[in-house]
Amino acid sequence: MDSHDLQAYLNDRIPLSRAMEVRVVAASEEGVRLAAPLAPNINHRDTVFGGSAAAIAMLSAWGLLQLRLEAAEMPSRVVIHRNEMTFERPIVTDFTATATIPEAEAWPRLVAALQRKGRGRVSVRVELECRHERVALFEGNFVAILAAPENERPS
Amino acid sequence: MDSHDLQAYLNDRIPLSRAMEVRVVAASEEGVRLAAPLAPNINHRDTVFGGSAAAIAMLSAWGLLQLRLEAAEMPSRVVIHRNEMTFERPIVTDFTATATIPEAEAWPRLVAALQRKGRGRVSVRVELECRHERVALFEGNFVAILAAPENERPS
Repeated sequence: MDSHDLQAYLNDRIPLSRAMEVRVVAASEEGVRLAAPLAPNINHRDTVFGGSAAAIAMLSAWGLLQLRLEAAEMPSRVVIHRNEMTFERPIVTDFTATATIPEAEAWPRLVAALQRKGRGRVSVRVELECRHERVALFEGNFVAILAAPENERPS
Repeated sequence: MDSHDLQAYLNDRIPLSRAMEVRVVAASEEGVRLAAPLAPNINHRDTVFGGSAAAIAMLSAWGLLQLRLEAAEMPSRVVIHRNEMTFERPIVTDFTATATIPEAEAWPRLVAALQRKGRGRVSVRVELECRHERVALFEGNFVAILAAPENERPS
């Protein structure tokens, strides 16, 4: 899955991503960066609506997990379980959301859990930036459930 | 501000609320309940996208604060500072988000802070329900800043 595939997937399957005019800027196993313009995401204060910021943060985190799980040949269903978000500054114009998995042990732990029991948890961190300054921080806990683990397939 | 006013305000000032087809079900000082249909908020799993759920939770919390601050004749700018959200079950069809301020002392404390220094903090709790079952819980910390406190007006 590359930037183009992720863009097509978001457009096709999550209509709100079109309404928010989300654009995939970069998509690799190191990180996924999405961008969105102010206009469709504006609030009553002429800054970005916090709900748009949260939604785009979630999309970037989810995209990163999908991309890594596909690369690991472990296609899985990924659902959000919990998140925390801190809004540090008003988002006054177009902005980006960059998802990474900062904890070195988190990914091998998830892969091992998927291999062992077909499901696992992982935390993804998303930094939102506007004009090269951090404006918000999102941390999400996701659950991945292996699509069709070998050991559950009918023989 | 009643249901009709809040609906008009959301439609006019927060375009994403139109894309999500948010409808104000109830709006009083006791609580604000918004509803949204599945279709515009659907994800790749044919359930509600977590980003839509978060955005609608934020709108309900923000609406409740606006409504109460207007009723208290303390028109203020309300911004979200932090939130936590737990997704308990998949949201399989149309859903509601109901914002309340459960802590009895929270409101008088906010009013006193606004009177004393023109700004204050308050926590709002939002329960999301689908088919009469709770599906997610949102807790948001907001900051209110009095629009034009008497003591800051030029004399």
